[in-house]
Amino acid sequence: MVGELMRRNGLAALLFWRPDELVMMLGYMPLWGVSVLLYPADGEAVLFVPELEPEDILPKGVTVKRYPWGVLDGNDPWEVLYSAIKEELFKRGLVDGAVSFIRSIGGSAPCRMSGEQPPLPGDLVQRLEGVCAGGWRDTGGELLRLYDQKTPADIAGLEKTHRVAARAVEVFYREVGGGHTEAMLAALIEMAVQETIGRGDVGFARAWPMVQSGPHSADAGRFNRSTGKVIVRGELVVLEMGVCVDGYWADITRTAVVGDAMNRQQRMYEAVAGAQKAAFACLRPGALMRDVDSAARSVISAAGFGSFFPHALGHQTGFRYHDPGDILSPYSTGTLREGMVITVEPGVYGEALGGGLRIEDNVLITAGGYRILSGSPRDLKGGNHVYEK
Amino acid sequence: MVGELMRRNGLAALLFWRPDELVMMLGYMPLWGVSVLLYPADGEAVLFVPELEPEDILPKGVTVKRYPWGVLDGNDPWEVLYSAIKEELFKRGLVDGAVSFIRSIGGSAPCRMSGEQPPLPGDLVQRLEGVCAGGWRDTGGELLRLYDQKTPADIAGLEKTHRVAARAVEVFYREVGGGHTEAMLAALIEMAVQETIGRGDVGFARAWPMVQSGPHSADAGRFNRSTGKVIVRGELVVLEMGVCVDGYWADITRTAVVGDAMNRQQRMYEAVAGAQKAAFACLRPGALMRDVDSAARSVISAAGFGSFFPHALGHQTGFRYHDPGDILSPYSTGTLREGMVITVEPGVYGEALGGGLRIEDNVLITAGGYRILSGSPRDLKGGNHVYEK
Repeated sequence: MVGELMRRNGLAALLFWRPDELVMMLGYMPLWGVSVLLYPADGEAVLFVPELEPEDILPKGVTVKRYPWGVLDGNDPWEVLYSAIKEELFKRGLVDGAVSFIRSIGGSAPCRMSGEQPPLPGDLVQRLEGVCAGGWRDTGGELLRLYDQKTPADIAGLEKTHRVAARAVEVFYREVGGGHTEAMLAALIEMAVQETIGRGDVGFARAWPMVQSGPHSADAGRFNRSTGKVIVRGELVVLEMGVCVDGYWADITRTAVVGDAMNRQQRMYEAVAGAQKAAFACLRPGALMRDVDSAARSVISAAGFGSFFPHALGHQTGFRYHDPGDILSPYSTGTLREGMVITVEPGVYGEALGGGLRIEDNVLITAGGYRILSGSPRDLKGGNHVYEK
Repeated sequence: MVGELMRRNGLAALLFWRPDELVMMLGYMPLWGVSVLLYPADGEAVLFVPELEPEDILPKGVTVKRYPWGVLDGNDPWEVLYSAIKEELFKRGLVDGAVSFIRSIGGSAPCRMSGEQPPLPGDLVQRLEGVCAGGWRDTGGELLRLYDQKTPADIAGLEKTHRVAARAVEVFYREVGGGHTEAMLAALIEMAVQETIGRGDVGFARAWPMVQSGPHSADAGRFNRSTGKVIVRGELVVLEMGVCVDGYWADITRTAVVGDAMNRQQRMYEAVAGAQKAAFACLRPGALMRDVDSAARSVISAAGFGSFFPHALGHQTGFRYHDPGDILSPYSTGTLREGMVITVEPGVYGEALGGGLRIEDNVLITAGGYRILSGSPRDLKGGNHVYEK
């Protein structure tokens, strides 16, 4: 795929350096986030990693070269890196060609040290444009399409993430009635994810749960966060959560009710669950994203909640909490393709409804239709409604 | 300060949009991370926030205008925003002037939804350069100097963060001997931080703790992470931790020993604690950063550990885990100034030493010298050595 893209665009090389790009190309989630992958036209890729990077997380099957980042000698490690890339291109006779990479750095998944963005220099893009005499060549968004296609290795990575995410969902339903604050419930859910580190093949695991209860759940279509509010009986409680395991992301929402559901809560649930079911029924390669959105939106409207579903039905996910690319909305011009992973997340929210409710699952588009990756319970009491074909 | 900077550089306006810049300018940590502050030459600032931003976190004392971000109508919200900024400049007769802002987007603190970078568009910088006819004007790094100067309001914010961080440190010393995995200890520490949300004046609180024990602690000078390894008796255990409370950051390291310290561990501790004390003694406005590094490095060398201290002594912090600006290293050309907040973090690490040990505190440079913000216990057993003047 990448080789074909380079030939068609007459490129000497591709470069990748964002944490999510390295996961996408190599299944490698960097710790420092300053590794750079050179993918030359002859196909022998070279991964430049900083001296400080742990050995045990480095990918197999690619040549790894260290550059002296983190060495206390006052020299600029990036100059060393740029020279090393140029030398590699020179050796291969590619130095007069053009390079391409995703130039926009408007977004990126965090690296393993997720408290801040990777310490990439501000002029990185400009300097990487200069590694070849032919400069940077625009591939017209083709590189972004790499996010749309999850390979079997990616799907295995996502399945691992969803196994961990299922533990988080279990803690949510078990603890939602425990008299916790929203923040404390979120912290317990996050702990259940982090403690899987080192179990089986989990190297890195982290969650970003946000819990909104009662009146706060009415805001869950506008924003998500946790507060110090105590969760009490009778309330709707929305959990919105990103989970990252070894670079692969899940984006899941569950809504529970504490105690017995009131009639209105039950009707809200049925509208949203029905909308999700209707959307699932449309999922197949070639389906228009706006048609999937419309199928869900119609069910919610028919139930009388049309004005309470203010957002798009879904987006792509997997290499990030939110992958780039077309979204499932009434205005989308996108089409589903095999190998995409999308969220399907209908919801209704309103002060007039006494709260909000969303169900969000992650779904792989397959040749024959779809497969739900987030198979954990999803009804108001932590039971399941099953949509599998 | 900002007005003076604009006059001296002949600017019509300044723009700020990164989460840490908004904390710095307004004490406002955005939830979505897509708010933009327009600071025109006449001083009447306007903050543009997305429709979806919660009201209760908006700053007082500045005009707030909403733009229709997150509205399901298929239109580009950024076009609306750019037009609104231009209109504001036009009304004030500033549209022919030049704007400045920090152009490098190599780094930024996360917003409240910290699982991913704010969803800023890739061409944001180019579009903001175009809001004035005079284009973008380089202020030669002066804007970055804003990070160097913590105001009394910033210091109050940092004190709140350090109160929360002290709880995390308490949990570390209490639980370090509890037979946990590194990841579980990190998760417990993080829980102690998150559950402060809603207590007193804490609106947002989050930690990124990383725990390395025994042989893993020998790597703590190269990288930090938690694994599934169980912490056992006799081991050195290093906690490296970023803590963010309402946009203000602490960056703290503590090292504990489980059980009684062996002679070598005690000697390592005394060298590192002595180095920190020697560095503190140099802290005052006007001191050269490399001299502070040297004072600490000399103590470690004299104790025979010189080759085991591979990194710089410290960096600036407060608006981010790592603020931009000069660092405390042998190669630094920087000078301490009143209002700076720096880390002082000597350490020694090595397989030959059987592990690693670091102590990291955050220190405000005052007119008379310095003040330690991270006053929690810091010795191997969770007791204190006190350096206050």
